[in-house]
Amino acid sequence: MTSTPTEWPRDSVGIVKEESFTFGSPESPLALTCGRTLGPVTLAYETCGELSPEKDNAILILHALSGDAHVAGYHTPEDRKPGWWDFMVGHGRPFDVDKYFVICSNVIGGCKGSTGPSSINPQTGKPYNLDFPMVTIADMVNAQKHLIDHLGIRRLLCVTGGSMGGMQALQWSIACPERVASAIPIATTCRQNAMQIGWDEVGRQAIYADADWCNGAYLLHNKRPVKGLAAARMLAHITYLSAESMQRKFGRRLREKENYGYDFGLDFEVESYLRHQGEIFVNRFDANSYLYITKALDYFDLERDHGSLRNAFENVLTRYLVLSFTSDWLYPTAQSLELVHALQNNRKRVRFRELETWYGHDSFLLPNAEMMALVSDFLATVQQEVRKV
Amino acid sequence: MTSTPTEWPRDSVGIVKEESFTFGSPESPLALTCGRTLGPVTLAYETCGELSPEKDNAILILHALSGDAHVAGYHTPEDRKPGWWDFMVGHGRPFDVDKYFVICSNVIGGCKGSTGPSSINPQTGKPYNLDFPMVTIADMVNAQKHLIDHLGIRRLLCVTGGSMGGMQALQWSIACPERVASAIPIATTCRQNAMQIGWDEVGRQAIYADADWCNGAYLLHNKRPVKGLAAARMLAHITYLSAESMQRKFGRRLREKENYGYDFGLDFEVESYLRHQGEIFVNRFDANSYLYITKALDYFDLERDHGSLRNAFENVLTRYLVLSFTSDWLYPTAQSLELVHALQNNRKRVRFRELETWYGHDSFLLPNAEMMALVSDFLATVQQEVRKV
Repeated sequence: MTSTPTEWPRDSVGIVKEESFTFGSPESPLALTCGRTLGPVTLAYETCGELSPEKDNAILILHALSGDAHVAGYHTPEDRKPGWWDFMVGHGRPFDVDKYFVICSNVIGGCKGSTGPSSINPQTGKPYNLDFPMVTIADMVNAQKHLIDHLGIRRLLCVTGGSMGGMQALQWSIACPERVASAIPIATTCRQNAMQIGWDEVGRQAIYADADWCNGAYLLHNKRPVKGLAAARMLAHITYLSAESMQRKFGRRLREKENYGYDFGLDFEVESYLRHQGEIFVNRFDANSYLYITKALDYFDLERDHGSLRNAFENVLTRYLVLSFTSDWLYPTAQSLELVHALQNNRKRVRFRELETWYGHDSFLLPNAEMMALVSDFLATVQQEVRKV
Repeated sequence: MTSTPTEWPRDSVGIVKEESFTFGSPESPLALTCGRTLGPVTLAYETCGELSPEKDNAILILHALSGDAHVAGYHTPEDRKPGWWDFMVGHGRPFDVDKYFVICSNVIGGCKGSTGPSSINPQTGKPYNLDFPMVTIADMVNAQKHLIDHLGIRRLLCVTGGSMGGMQALQWSIACPERVASAIPIATTCRQNAMQIGWDEVGRQAIYADADWCNGAYLLHNKRPVKGLAAARMLAHITYLSAESMQRKFGRRLREKENYGYDFGLDFEVESYLRHQGEIFVNRFDANSYLYITKALDYFDLERDHGSLRNAFENVLTRYLVLSFTSDWLYPTAQSLELVHALQNNRKRVRFRELETWYGHDSFLLPNAEMMALVSDFLATVQQEVRKV
């Protein structure tokens, strides 16, 4: 194969470098919401575009549950699979690298280059496993603040992300009002509801049910709970889709057969697809990270943290663009509207749009002309305003 | 405790007897859709009310995935938990035992007194386990036909059920047009869609992931895949509810604590509820039956069986009352409408109503005045018509 970078789209950011930043020595570790501390803390991140001399064009992109810092572009010339939000980040794309300096930070608790349960615990020389402290969305954001400080950026032009990334964006705007000019929370919520907690809990139970989980110590036993983690992922994957998108994509089509097998092998394309999603996930994700990050999602509740949603947004100085999707039944529009109303009750500046799609929660990860135009326009307005001040 | 039956509601059917009927000797076993045979076949069933001398007042009630033949009343004087559809069956209740003879039949493949994978295989003297042949909704109905013959009933006044029970009702009306005067399929579909297959497949994967499943042979090893089956049930249970009902019932309420535990113990009421649902389920249901019955659901496709839905209902002689629920996102109203349209395209008699509820798919299992009135009225009309002929 003689593949060359010329196969990449012309507006791609091209090669991006995996970077990491470590802070939090044993003497000054990161204080966590749970009361424990974590240190040293490493954050994996990637950047594209150039930071302006005024350092006023930085956009921080935050990823969802299973995401990572690789938001756009390619890691090697041979790479054919771009980052997870590539269509949003590039030359002339909504997060336009000719105008903006784009940063994407991984989260603590994860397994994509940042400190998490599979990292080595400096006190024992072994993986933390379940000794890793519980982390929250606020802790993830606190860690990112160290990274943004390190990059010398005082105020972010925008903080954005979908799903858990949107929670981080909201948390950023509340925790550091003066450091966030604008935020674009997408397909997200101010607090995980009972059904969202329920799905996460079932995923965790599927992992616990796998004997190879070894009560969290599988790394010490050279095992991995691949079946349980795959089941958890399959379950979550369905919640990211819509009944309509699944029906359009798979219907009742059989998998390489004309008649039912009348056994427990593969009958339907949708079974094959879900099994495949489970299989590839276990090769790229750590089961304990899955447990920790779903707990961070479930603990997210700005109402509880601040007494009320109105209080939560009382002191924000951020301008918001809130987006939701008609087919997203996991993080439905009603949750975005709850956010919008809390902002409006505080007379904050917010634009809201529900986009018509049929892809479900995953809609934010798929090219959408309306979403792209809304983000472009919003960022242009924000940048103009920031530069005017 | 000196509890007495007087604590039961006055319109209860009171004590009902668990009965069973066995047919299908090795010489004339039940022929199954998969090409294999099953015999002998035992069906558990219960009856309430009296069969009229004309034998024209029999109503066959069919249960959903995890249901059983115990549809109403109590098994012993000490029993405080009535059958699963007790509010529908009783003196003066919609399935009025003063007017109708009510039969509820369990399904083959199950574990509630009928022949299923945990039954003894007469050829080996051991449980069938995965040697049990795959059964379909049509096979379940074929087995029930033997029971109805045995009871001496030529024509059923009504066949009804919710979810998988509704599938059996549809299958009855198609397979035996002259034997079904009316049918009330509730919260059901003519064919399982991709998402419904997907949920079932994830449940199966959660069971497979439990090492104690022993590739289906757990009974031979004195084990039971309780964790995997519990996870499967928790997952399914969420699909039976609605986000609204879960939020109203649990919200983000903590379980016997005021602050988050920041561990993998119990934090939220909804986690406690789901874990409890999983735990009680594994004590009353067999994991292999769960696998077989979900496959029967997934194989259900009247369109595939008959070339088109229109063809499927071409020869029915049944009058239908089709019911769905606004909050049921698992078997949404659109699927009931597909059925209604197939009947209307054949100029068959069908009444349809979407009932406003917020309980999700489980709505059919909960008292609902509108549903009760619709069923009462429909049955009265049908009986009047049947007796006129």
